[in-house]
Amino acid sequence: MTAEYFLVLGLIGVAFFAVAGALLGYEKNISGFGVVVVATVTALGGGTLRDILLSKPIFWIETPDYLYSTYAAIIATVLLIRYLPSVNNYYFLVVDAIGMAIFNIMGIEKALISGSGLVVAITMGITTGIFGSLIRDVICREVPSVMRNEPYASACLAGGLVYAALFSQDISYIWCILGSLITTISLRLGSLHWGWHITIFRKKDREVSQKSEVQNS
Amino acid sequence: MTAEYFLVLGLIGVAFFAVAGALLGYEKNISGFGVVVVATVTALGGGTLRDILLSKPIFWIETPDYLYSTYAAIIATVLLIRYLPSVNNYYFLVVDAIGMAIFNIMGIEKALISGSGLVVAITMGITTGIFGSLIRDVICREVPSVMRNEPYASACLAGGLVYAALFSQDISYIWCILGSLITTISLRLGSLHWGWHITIFRKKDREVSQKSEVQNS
Amino acid sequence: MTAEYFLVLGLIGVAFFAVAGALLGYEKNISGFGVVVVATVTALGGGTLRDILLSKPIFWIETPDYLYSTYAAIIATVLLIRYLPSVNNYYFLVVDAIGMAIFNIMGIEKALISGSGLVVAITMGITTGIFGSLIRDVICREVPSVMRNEPYASACLAGGLVYAALFSQDISYIWCILGSLITTISLRLGSLHWGWHITIFRKKDREVSQKSEVQNS
Repeated sequence: MTAEYFLVLGLIGVAFFAVAGALLGYEKNISGFGVVVVATVTALGGGTLRDILLSKPIFWIETPDYLYSTYAAIIATVLLIRYLPSVNNYYFLVVDAIGMAIFNIMGIEKALISGSGLVVAITMGITTGIFGSLIRDVICREVPSVMRNEPYASACLAGGLVYAALFSQDISYIWCILGSLITTISLRLGSLHWGWHITIFRKKDREVSQKSEVQNS
Repeated sequence: MTAEYFLVLGLIGVAFFAVAGALLGYEKNISGFGVVVVATVTALGGGTLRDILLSKPIFWIETPDYLYSTYAAIIATVLLIRYLPSVNNYYFLVVDAIGMAIFNIMGIEKALISGSGLVVAITMGITTGIFGSLIRDVICREVPSVMRNEPYASACLAGGLVYAALFSQDISYIWCILGSLITTISLRLGSLHWGWHITIFRKKDREVSQKSEVQNS
Repeated sequence: MTAEYFLVLGLIGVAFFAVAGALLGYEKNISGFGVVVVATVTALGGGTLRDILLSKPIFWIETPDYLYSTYAAIIATVLLIRYLPSVNNYYFLVVDAIGMAIFNIMGIEKALISGSGLVVAITMGITTGIFGSLIRDVICREVPSVMRNEPYASACLAGGLVYAALFSQDISYIWCILGSLITTISLRLGSLHWGWHITIFRKKDREVSQKSEVQNS
């Protein structure tokens, strides 16, 4: 039962991230085959790193369905954009948030199955959730989402804590997943909509100009 | 026999990529030891990722000959540049194309030997072919070649399809390799010479300025 | 005995790199949770790559103490910066140099234990020493330290050669470590203080402007 949920969630997760990658490629006006590369890296990067770290076979090599799901989502997105060119940045953020929330859970789950403790599992969830989009942003020369002062990795962390709390109460698996998904997605999208942000450091006046340079360059 | 071809091809491939990395370091005027780091990462990055993904021992740890070939090629390139400083960007592109074509084949071959199907194998070939130069471009803060609207990953894809087609016809191994090499290299160099390009998306007028920013920054 | 030294050295090494990552995040005015991500990647990146390459279990998954040491160092640094905001770039460079020197030794040591030869081991030391800070600089859109014309990877190389020389003389383990640490740290900090640099290529006049662009952008 768990394995089936896992596969379905995973296929949906890679598809969402593939769409997010293709949309960013479109935004950055990469018109060639590079769009496929960026979208594939976004979709498979986080889970690949998770499997490498846990010394498991890479998920898309063991189960090529993930690869087919990725390629199908990319082709669908490319066709959609060609015929509906009004797609905008808002869709990208929603799709990216859903993908991140799903991968966060999958990272936690797979680490727990491998016998890791909770701190390692939550770290693995964050890694799985943010790594694909981190590589995508680096390749596209964007400021990585995780470096902006909006909840991103912290939305993964919150989703992970909710998952752990529900799981420890022996609540049914499907509710653990839903609770974590809703927490991560609503924190991420809520923060974008209402401008929530986390401040660990008080801003330094002398570097405000330097900061804006980083964010805009 | 196959293993010997494989070793010889690989030693040539890492040497070509090491030369390409050292030439880019020279172009970017990195004058210190960083040139060696960039060239080594370029030469070994793609094959290292391939071996990690396939859960094989890393090729240059198992067979240090690859490491010696890399270092020898770097030293030779540095000496050549010091005494023949007229080396220009054209050599870089040729050397980079040959290295990519060789690594593409090696990625496909090693994935097939591991029992992967054709879609996974061709994905692995592209990954092996482009990953070293992708890290190199990220470290050197260049726009990654794969993001430019010229055949790059797609030249690997074409080479992979030719390889698969010839292989499925029971044609002798050496001709499969040659056919794939010629396809990839001629597509890549032909596109640079005659300006071929692939257009997946129609250009968006409103973002042409944004695009040129990406390409030039 | 060796294993205990190894653990203590490692816990100190990840803590130093975590501090260096948090300080760079502060310098770049990342005020949110991204600071934790950058610091964690810096602390664990090099050792993670080493363990992946050597096909060993990842050190912070096998021994979560490393993860706790990283998080504790990050929290301590954040608190310190909040109450002592006069922390400056000099501390960053010292902490970064010490972390690099420790990881260099740990990479060499772990490769030798795995049965690798000396060239592979020294390559692994450099990889372990520089990879965490390389990812950190890429994520923060800094020119990677290793690309600047100051001893960085070469300080690791020197430390590795000293370690190998002392080790081959059957000198006590603690002196091998100290000799290597002192060599790497003093080369790195000495070069920053007195402006030593390595010149592999003679500078090309026509590209001096391009170079300054790379270094300043």
